[in-house]
Amino acid sequence: MLSSIDKPHFSHEMAVRDYELDRYGVINNAVYQNYLEHTRHLFLESHGVIFVDLFECGYSPVITKAELEYRSSLKSRDEFVVNLQLAVLSKVKFVFLQEILSLPEKKLIISAKITGTILDSSGRPCFPDSFQELRSFLTHNIKSVQ
Amino acid sequence: MLSSIDKPHFSHEMAVRDYELDRYGVINNAVYQNYLEHTRHLFLESHGVIFVDLFECGYSPVITKAELEYRSSLKSRDEFVVNLQLAVLSKVKFVFLQEILSLPEKKLIISAKITGTILDSSGRPCFPDSFQELRSFLTHNIKSVQ
Amino acid sequence: MLSSIDKPHFSHEMAVRDYELDRYGVINNAVYQNYLEHTRHLFLESHGVIFVDLFECGYSPVITKAELEYRSSLKSRDEFVVNLQLAVLSKVKFVFLQEILSLPEKKLIISAKITGTILDSSGRPCFPDSFQELRSFLTHNIKSVQ
Amino acid sequence: MLSSIDKPHFSHEMAVRDYELDRYGVINNAVYQNYLEHTRHLFLESHGVIFVDLFECGYSPVITKAELEYRSSLKSRDEFVVNLQLAVLSKVKFVFLQEILSLPEKKLIISAKITGTILDSSGRPCFPDSFQELRSFLTHNIKSVQ
Repeated sequence: MLSSIDKPHFSHEMAVRDYELDRYGVINNAVYQNYLEHTRHLFLESHGVIFVDLFECGYSPVITKAELEYRSSLKSRDEFVVNLQLAVLSKVKFVFLQEILSLPEKKLIISAKITGTILDSSGRPCFPDSFQELRSFLTHNIKSVQ
Repeated sequence: MLSSIDKPHFSHEMAVRDYELDRYGVINNAVYQNYLEHTRHLFLESHGVIFVDLFECGYSPVITKAELEYRSSLKSRDEFVVNLQLAVLSKVKFVFLQEILSLPEKKLIISAKITGTILDSSGRPCFPDSFQELRSFLTHNIKSVQ
Repeated sequence: MLSSIDKPHFSHEMAVRDYELDRYGVINNAVYQNYLEHTRHLFLESHGVIFVDLFECGYSPVITKAELEYRSSLKSRDEFVVNLQLAVLSKVKFVFLQEILSLPEKKLIISAKITGTILDSSGRPCFPDSFQELRSFLTHNIKSVQ
Repeated sequence: MLSSIDKPHFSHEMAVRDYELDRYGVINNAVYQNYLEHTRHLFLESHGVIFVDLFECGYSPVITKAELEYRSSLKSRDEFVVNLQLAVLSKVKFVFLQEILSLPEKKLIISAKITGTILDSSGRPCFPDSFQELRSFLTHNIKSVQ
């Protein structure tokens, strides 16, 4: 497994919508990426990082690598939680560990490692001010875990 | 980079559709997985492996791992080619190497390694008859490359 | 306007997910149909009509007509409610009136009239047993409104 | 039927992609709207109307009404053509008639009437310069039909 998330920094519960099912009655692989992205955005917003604002200021968060391990499938009417841990946040790189667990069984559906960077308007890695709060959160959070 | 595909086993040209663009004017990360899947299905069909038939016979091809490296983005009206190489095909595992190149520049957009297995109706790895032709193709193809 | 829903039979609250936004920062027209469908399925399930079960019994609910009036747009982070009224339910036809209202303003985003029928395995209109409860609900509901 | 398109102004052939199929092995109703939109954009582009350019100039083409009649379904590997007729184009309104026919049988899958308007940056109906060519085309086209 890519990783195990002991203490998620953020969790978001969702439910499968029938239109997300594919021909074979399970969630299509691509749809999981939507779930993961939505949860990352909610996490960032809860720390004052608004995607729309970032783009209006000329910043572009880009995913450079996605590693996804599919363990089981979600079906019609399944409920699940998406857990997230922001493992790395520096000027040149961020790494999210994410996992989707079925509810209420907490069966592992997918685990993921999402790596990216934030580019400024000239395409260079940068660290926008709005990420400062996030870094403070991480620093505090790591201390409190130790 | 995950891999470089020198001699693709299959190539499929497509064009971006506007409804696939996201908020930021580029193809959303999840949509690339759709492009990759569609091309895998076309490749398999060109070798007599029909997904719908597989499922009706109780076989389930499942992706167990997807590794995706995003190098550049596709935008409105871009054309591109999806290349595919079936790197491994055994009773317990298949591995596809895939890449998306913009056209006509052949700029690398994404490279991917997709690993999976085929399960029978009791959930055990299997090797359906329809994959025999595919294995013959691979064996022949590897010889002719050498 | 197609219709006004005074006393919804069912309401479901949702929130926009960023991956549903299109190039222009608003929800793409097609996505509203997903919201409407999801709400219809939830309503039917709350009355014991399970889509997956219907199909396994050889019944196919099909939409024959969709009329959609777009009044305003949903944007990133918007919350909204989908209201539903089952206006007609007979052996040959069902009609849903639906509307999407932004929250908390209750601004009308879209109003819709969705017409369909349920086919049996030979393609003839039918009225599966599981719809009986729904008809009772409607009969009762109409009485209590009068 | 909403309309019959005798002499399409534009036609675009496409093929079903497996990831567009829903739980029941057919194209989900919402996906047809994607096909229709994609074809409208291609038609407009073939007449010099580029959506991205419109938005950058502050113009917003908006759909105000969509009427869709579903006659039959598309399944895995089906090919189809989307026909389009621009029935009305004025300063305050445009109306597209569209239909999807399966190939090669030309069986009617869906017919649609899409009504909209173009708004300027202050939200008033307008008629951008790039639509002039389109109006000339229409005027000529109607004459040549008579």
